[in-house]
Parts: sequence; C-alpha cells; structure tokens
Amino acid sequence: MSANFSTPQDAEDAYYDAIDEKDLEAMMSVWADSDDILCLLPMMPAQRGTASIRKLWEPLMSGEVVLDMSVKHLAWLETGDVAIHLVEEHVQAPGMESFQIVYASNVYHKSPDGWRILMHQNSPTPPQTAGLEIPEME
Amino acid sequence: MSANFSTPQDAEDAYYDAIDEKDLEAMMSVWADSDDILCLLPMMPAQRGTASIRKLWEPLMSGEVVLDMSVKHLAWLETGDVAIHLVEEHVQAPGMESFQIVYASNVYHKSPDGWRILMHQNSPTPPQTAGLEIPEME
Repeated sequence: MSANFSTPQDAEDAYYDAIDEKDLEAMMSVWADSDDILCLLPMMPAQRGTASIRKLWEPLMSGEVVLDMSVKHLAWLETGDVAIHLVEEHVQAPGMESFQIVYASNVYHKSPDGWRILMHQNSPTPPQTAGLEIPEME
Repeated sequence: MSANFSTPQDAEDAYYDAIDEKDLEAMMSVWADSDDILCLLPMMPAQRGTASIRKLWEPLMSGEVVLDMSVKHLAWLETGDVAIHLVEEHVQAPGMESFQIVYASNVYHKSPDGWRILMHQNSPTPPQTAGLEIPEME
C-alpha cells in the first residue's frame, strides 16, 4: 500500500482507521519501516521492528476481534521532524459493559515519504482519575 | 543546577541517579524546560509541563518514599536530534517481597544545552512474560 502522510495527524487518523477497518496493510503502512520501531500494547510484551509488530497486529486484525475504539486528544508535542501525540483510547470490546480508557502515546517521525509512527505505547489510566486530568492538559 | 548531558545515556543516567539520590533539582535538570513535556508514571494521571512534573515528583523525592530501582536496557532508537530508550525498571519498595518490573520509555531531545527528556512513560509488563522478550530485543 502506498501512503504518504503529510502531517502527524494524518498518520494518526490512518492508524486508528486501520484498527476500525481491520486493515493490516493499512496499519503497517503507517509505521516507519525499521527494525527499531516499538509497539507496547496493553499487557502484551513490547515488540520491536516491522516483522514483530506485524505479527503482533495480525490476530488483532482478524475477523474474530471486534474493538469499538474512539480517541480523545490530550496533548501534542512537536520538535523538528518528530511529533508526540498523547491520547486517551476509549475501547469497548464485546461483553464489556462500559468503555475502558487507556493512555496511548504515538511518536511520529517525518521521513522523505511523509510522517510515520516510530513508537506506540499504551498505559493504564488510574481508574479514579481517568478523564479528570484532561482540562489541565489542554 | 547546571547540567549539560552530551548523550541521551548521560541524561538517562542522571534521571535514575536523581531517583536513587532523591534529588528533585537533579531530576528536574534532566527534563526539557517546556510546557509540553509529558510524564506518565504507573497508575498516576498523565502530567504535562515543567510545573506539573515537578509537583508529581516532589512527594516521590521526599524522605518518606524509598525505592530500590535498577534498570535493564531493552532497545534504543535514534533519529537526528531525538532518541528513544526503552528499558525495564525493576523496582522494590519496602514490604515488597520481590521486584516489580515495569516498562519505561524515555524520549530525549538534543537542545543547545544538551540532551533532555521530552517524555517518560511507564507501562506494566505482562506478568507471565516479563523478561522473556528481552533476548528478542537486543
């Protein structure tokens, strides 16, 4: 798949669209093609490199997993050709009564082919305070 | 405190030394001085900006909290004036029988004053696999 994201936000939109659409090739097109890229999904071992990250996402993009995910922007940090976006992912899986909220940071790098993801990392939000810190961060 | 870290590793060493030594000023000298820096400690609300991050670390640097922490390097990623280090933090608090292992990523930026931290983020490791992925990542 040919993709050329002209802003970090374009790359981010493509990342979450790929999850919605269960499109593994679209997902992989958002990542920098490198042995050094890093992906830390909730409660899964950290993965490094294109091959490992493809293997990580492959079952999540299969027909059997259905994730209803929306994203809330918390903070942006840009310096030169690197951008960091901090978001909350609101995830609802089948059988879950309510959304689960997790933090996610996405680190983007501007390459000659456009902006790509270098690192994605999820962290749990403290249940008692999830969401409360948002006003401070905007 | 005047500090000028000539490599990302120098900044990282200073970050963990500051925790060992409970030195809040040394800790803050490692961070970029910016309203945009981000710190996500385990199960705490995400914090943004120098003032909020100082407030976050202040009680952790007090005499009452004792953390025995060692760090295991997992992966480095460098691009231009930005570096990302992924480590495992092995933490033992008083009363804990064994070390708790969490992932931590540190994103560094090279400024005219040397390398500083832009973002620190912890994530839990999956208990059944913590440590097992290390050989793949080195």
